[in-house]
Amino acid sequence: MTFPDPNLDHIFRPRSVAIVGASNDPSRISGRPLRYLKERGYKGKIYPINPTRDVVQGMKAWPSLADLPEAPDVAILAIPSTLIPGVLRDGAVIGLKGAIIMSSGFAEAGEEGAVLQAEITAIAQETGIRILGPNCVGLFSTNINFYGTFTQSIDRDVPPLGGVAVVSQSGAYGGYIAYLASQRGLGINYWVTTGNEADLEVGECIAWLAGRDDVKVIALYLEGVRKGPAFREGLARARAAGKPVIAMKVGRSAAGEKAAQSHTASMAGSDDVYDAIFRDYGVYRATTTEEQLDIAEACLTGPYPVGRKLGILTLSGGVGVQMCDAAEVYGLDVATMPEDAGRKLKKLLPFAAVGNPIDTTAQVMNDMSLLSENIRIVLEEGGYDMIVFFLTTTPAADAYAIPIRDAILKGLRGQKDKLVVLCMGAREEIRKSYREMGFLVYQDADRAVQIAGALTHFGQAFATVPRHAPVPLGRRVEGTGPMSEHAAKKVLASAGVPFLTEVLATTAEEAAKAAKTAGGPVAMKVASPDIQHKTEIGGVALNVATVNVRAAFHRLTHNVAEKAPDATLEGILVAPMAPKGIEVIVGTITDAVFGPVVMFGMGGILVELVPDVTFQPAPFDLDTAREMVARIKAAPLFDGYRGAPKADTEALAQLLSNLSLFAAANAGTLQSIDLNPVLVLEDGKGVVALDAVVERRSA
Amino acid sequence: MTFPDPNLDHIFRPRSVAIVGASNDPSRISGRPLRYLKERGYKGKIYPINPTRDVVQGMKAWPSLADLPEAPDVAILAIPSTLIPGVLRDGAVIGLKGAIIMSSGFAEAGEEGAVLQAEITAIAQETGIRILGPNCVGLFSTNINFYGTFTQSIDRDVPPLGGVAVVSQSGAYGGYIAYLASQRGLGINYWVTTGNEADLEVGECIAWLAGRDDVKVIALYLEGVRKGPAFREGLARARAAGKPVIAMKVGRSAAGEKAAQSHTASMAGSDDVYDAIFRDYGVYRATTTEEQLDIAEACLTGPYPVGRKLGILTLSGGVGVQMCDAAEVYGLDVATMPEDAGRKLKKLLPFAAVGNPIDTTAQVMNDMSLLSENIRIVLEEGGYDMIVFFLTTTPAADAYAIPIRDAILKGLRGQKDKLVVLCMGAREEIRKSYREMGFLVYQDADRAVQIAGALTHFGQAFATVPRHAPVPLGRRVEGTGPMSEHAAKKVLASAGVPFLTEVLATTAEEAAKAAKTAGGPVAMKVASPDIQHKTEIGGVALNVATVNVRAAFHRLTHNVAEKAPDATLEGILVAPMAPKGIEVIVGTITDAVFGPVVMFGMGGILVELVPDVTFQPAPFDLDTAREMVARIKAAPLFDGYRGAPKADTEALAQLLSNLSLFAAANAGTLQSIDLNPVLVLEDGKGVVALDAVVERRSA
Repeated sequence: MTFPDPNLDHIFRPRSVAIVGASNDPSRISGRPLRYLKERGYKGKIYPINPTRDVVQGMKAWPSLADLPEAPDVAILAIPSTLIPGVLRDGAVIGLKGAIIMSSGFAEAGEEGAVLQAEITAIAQETGIRILGPNCVGLFSTNINFYGTFTQSIDRDVPPLGGVAVVSQSGAYGGYIAYLASQRGLGINYWVTTGNEADLEVGECIAWLAGRDDVKVIALYLEGVRKGPAFREGLARARAAGKPVIAMKVGRSAAGEKAAQSHTASMAGSDDVYDAIFRDYGVYRATTTEEQLDIAEACLTGPYPVGRKLGILTLSGGVGVQMCDAAEVYGLDVATMPEDAGRKLKKLLPFAAVGNPIDTTAQVMNDMSLLSENIRIVLEEGGYDMIVFFLTTTPAADAYAIPIRDAILKGLRGQKDKLVVLCMGAREEIRKSYREMGFLVYQDADRAVQIAGALTHFGQAFATVPRHAPVPLGRRVEGTGPMSEHAAKKVLASAGVPFLTEVLATTAEEAAKAAKTAGGPVAMKVASPDIQHKTEIGGVALNVATVNVRAAFHRLTHNVAEKAPDATLEGILVAPMAPKGIEVIVGTITDAVFGPVVMFGMGGILVELVPDVTFQPAPFDLDTAREMVARIKAAPLFDGYRGAPKADTEALAQLLSNLSLFAAANAGTLQSIDLNPVLVLEDGKGVVALDAVVERRSA
Repeated sequence: MTFPDPNLDHIFRPRSVAIVGASNDPSRISGRPLRYLKERGYKGKIYPINPTRDVVQGMKAWPSLADLPEAPDVAILAIPSTLIPGVLRDGAVIGLKGAIIMSSGFAEAGEEGAVLQAEITAIAQETGIRILGPNCVGLFSTNINFYGTFTQSIDRDVPPLGGVAVVSQSGAYGGYIAYLASQRGLGINYWVTTGNEADLEVGECIAWLAGRDDVKVIALYLEGVRKGPAFREGLARARAAGKPVIAMKVGRSAAGEKAAQSHTASMAGSDDVYDAIFRDYGVYRATTTEEQLDIAEACLTGPYPVGRKLGILTLSGGVGVQMCDAAEVYGLDVATMPEDAGRKLKKLLPFAAVGNPIDTTAQVMNDMSLLSENIRIVLEEGGYDMIVFFLTTTPAADAYAIPIRDAILKGLRGQKDKLVVLCMGAREEIRKSYREMGFLVYQDADRAVQIAGALTHFGQAFATVPRHAPVPLGRRVEGTGPMSEHAAKKVLASAGVPFLTEVLATTAEEAAKAAKTAGGPVAMKVASPDIQHKTEIGGVALNVATVNVRAAFHRLTHNVAEKAPDATLEGILVAPMAPKGIEVIVGTITDAVFGPVVMFGMGGILVELVPDVTFQPAPFDLDTAREMVARIKAAPLFDGYRGAPKADTEALAQLLSNLSLFAAANAGTLQSIDLNPVLVLEDGKGVVALDAVVERRSA
């Protein structure tokens, strides 16, 4: 699916704005937008609308949208919710293009509000007016001084100009990070809160922002996405444009998910599915607000390393060890120094540790050229993609602050593409003087390595060529509710899921014949759409020798007649006993927001308590399926672990991809598929699903 | 083991100090301690020792320790390493009590240095001089202005007086946090770096600090402990005194462990064992330096909640969800509001969300008494142990800053034992005004919840009555190297490890008789100390029917004669086939520092890739063993998971405790024990170990 370029210029960069319900009191919610626009020097036309006043906050006011001399690009609506549909229709008549609805009383407020919100959505679709909100805090665009918001967080200070864009479903969170950004001098060019998302949602906002040259990085706050395809489109555009998205997605805990649902009207998808979507588009998931802002700030500096090789430098040991630990957590490779480079370093600094971490020792303080040369060797000859350098508190001493900085700069000459992150204790003014020379500077060693990891995360995401999703196979699942095992297996087999050759025998003769064909002991079980728990009614016989098949047939049918007399018996399934293989679970779920998602993990009861599973949105190709197989922790089991034969991971990947195509093609009718267990046989012998449960959507 | 109160007053709080090798140049390493002592107003006697000068930095100098008019409490040694033994012996003659050795060139520098260090250790033991270092950066004691250190991190600013004590094995890390502490105004009364720990190590330092009234919390940096019992004693004293220990233990990654070993001469124990030790003594393990300092600072305020029930309050939603997620990570319980209290809240604030999080909405801004009453109801009637309150950026507005603060204080009247953590965006001066009223204040919501979690961690640790370790059983393992399976089982059985009844048959007749007694199919395997891999030589027969036992006996002995003609054959072990049970692994390792440690986890090959194991230092009692069983993720499997019968966890706990006593009693000769698998049978039927491998220490 591809989308047209979203044109939201009239909302984010309006040339004129009406404020419907503008209050004369500049401290009130309905008075603040006008005050902010006036105070901060918005250059477009401002039309306060107030039927009871000629002048509002010193400006000429108009009684209604219909009375305006022109159609404004956008109208800010701060009036009771029930009046909103009427005002929107008035706006449509004069050619209004966009609306920012701050009022609450919609889907978040119960059923009546939900009806009102649906009406607004319908108006947006009918009239083409794009709507932000309702129940949102608005937006601001710093470089045209457009403050279409009532957030109190910018009452005193506003964030400076800069390449960060903030997209937040929560007005409170958005306001909070706007405040923190202004405190730390982090520049935000665009800031938008999406509220109930009756029309515009995060995805389209991201897509528009991704296309702006004045946006370098996007900080996102999510409780739950409403429109999966638009969200993915937004993320795809951001990645294609090389713009990092740093997401704070809340609701990962059970309590958090409950709280998110009570707080907004959003339908939270499963957190695992979000992780899968984020992975697909290279979104970085932050867990703290400070982390989110630190990474956003670092992205403005860059660069984004494509490789993971980290050189750790220290002026003194100890903290180097801490940084090694951090490197493991953040996915960086503390690769050993190549021998040649190590020898050169040792010649330069005989007392230095030259492995990695590289401990220069304080010797370099006596001759700063040694430091420059050390850095040159590490980057040029050590082959590292980046370095993190722990400078202790040495730069805190006035005598050293600038000489060290310049010695590092000298060592970096001709290495501008390499990432250099510094960790040091020094006064803010000194750290600032380093930042001004293009260094990333942190006081916490863990954070310094985390930043290197985050920038590498984006470097690798941007270097990955997005795969084209394969075309789903034709639709095959009709009807509603559970399918019988036999029907499920039949339709899945036609989609490329291998099962044991299974014969539905309706007579003892047919059963005996099937067993003979199978050529060994067989498993027999009753086939009935009405019987879910076959074992409980004596409906399963395992390891039945060929000579005993007839008797077993009669016993099983007898058991059904006795224990489940009302069940429709389709016959007795006869299948060979399962071969030996590694037990895995494969399945699909249908996420309310993102549609079909394939799950894969290790089988057995333990997996529920110590999960080792991975999710991948469907459909996907064979390469993606191979990555999925390699992703679980138990993956080495497939590669001939402890002398066992290598398993047929290629067949497993094929199964996963096949299932993803099937699930995507049948997304409209399918609820879930469970293949449990699937046996992964020895390499070359394929995989086989022993059981299949297919659940269709309820009517 | 109990230790006498460590008296380190003469090192930490000396009344007089000699500086051997004091330099006239106050910027040099050997000149800085004297400069710091003079500049910062140390009130004790200072004796610079310098054989070539009469005056050093303006003070009278003495040619040697022997020339002093009195024995100083402590001598700081900043002279070449080879001169140190002589100076120490000189000191012993005049009655020197302590020495701080800053010089390097000892165990960290190779074999010769290690020999020199051993000499110093011997001198300490012979003479009773307590030694800090060598290769350390010294220590300081703020409230007597004793700066026996050359760390440059205090060159400009020193941390103020305050209840934090810093104990660091790394001079660089110690110096770094001293600097960060002085920047943030965090008070440090004692700061010590232990270097190579030839005599004094972290444990004794902690023990001494735990006994000081002017120490409220201990921040610890560890690469590897050298003396396990002393370390445990220190932690035990700290806990008994209600003093939190916040540890930064580095080397948890493979690269980090390697780097730690190259950086110091310490022998790093396994990281899992550290986690177990920390758990036993309630030590909090920090992963970032900022976290370590934030928690140390919070501990100075307290209180330490004993329960885990967290009430989350917000002035506006969104961030409440983020805090729910954080609560799960930090082990706090976002318990639902009791109905009665909820009704009262709803009556007070009709638009509020009154579950948990409790969203007061901005309504309280119009009437602050509502806020006070809200807080009173949550704490008094909601039964929460603590609250974390997200105030958005409201306190940033001058009109609200102080009224909100006072409204919260009013709501807390009579609730002084409850922990209240605030998260807000506001200028530093406003946040400071909150801190001055006793609030813990953070800008990051995740950090606010983390702090609540950390203080609760300590509240629970201090409320736990330490268990007395049971007395280990008598010593039973002699000799070195691997034991034969039969011998291993015999000695373990006598220590309370249940095995299947196994008969060592030396004739086919005996084997047949044993099988008859077993009363069903048996397992048979060759018993030989020389054969480790029995299956490979055809030395195992499973599921042997009673009638086939004689033939199997002959086949097995024949296989040994043919495939392993040189092996000593003790006979054939005959045992019943294993009953059904849950497969677990139980074992012991001998940690180089902390001695025997019992491991327990789920069995099977998967456990190596998706580990679910726990460690517990031996010996321990049955209650501790029960906690150990409950600690692994798969624990619900034992409690009748998915309709399976409940397993005999009591017998499992008994096995673990028995094994711990055995391992402790034989710590001198035992290297490791592996019981793999152990089957946990149905409740009341016990456990049974199917195999035992005992490794003794090499000679």
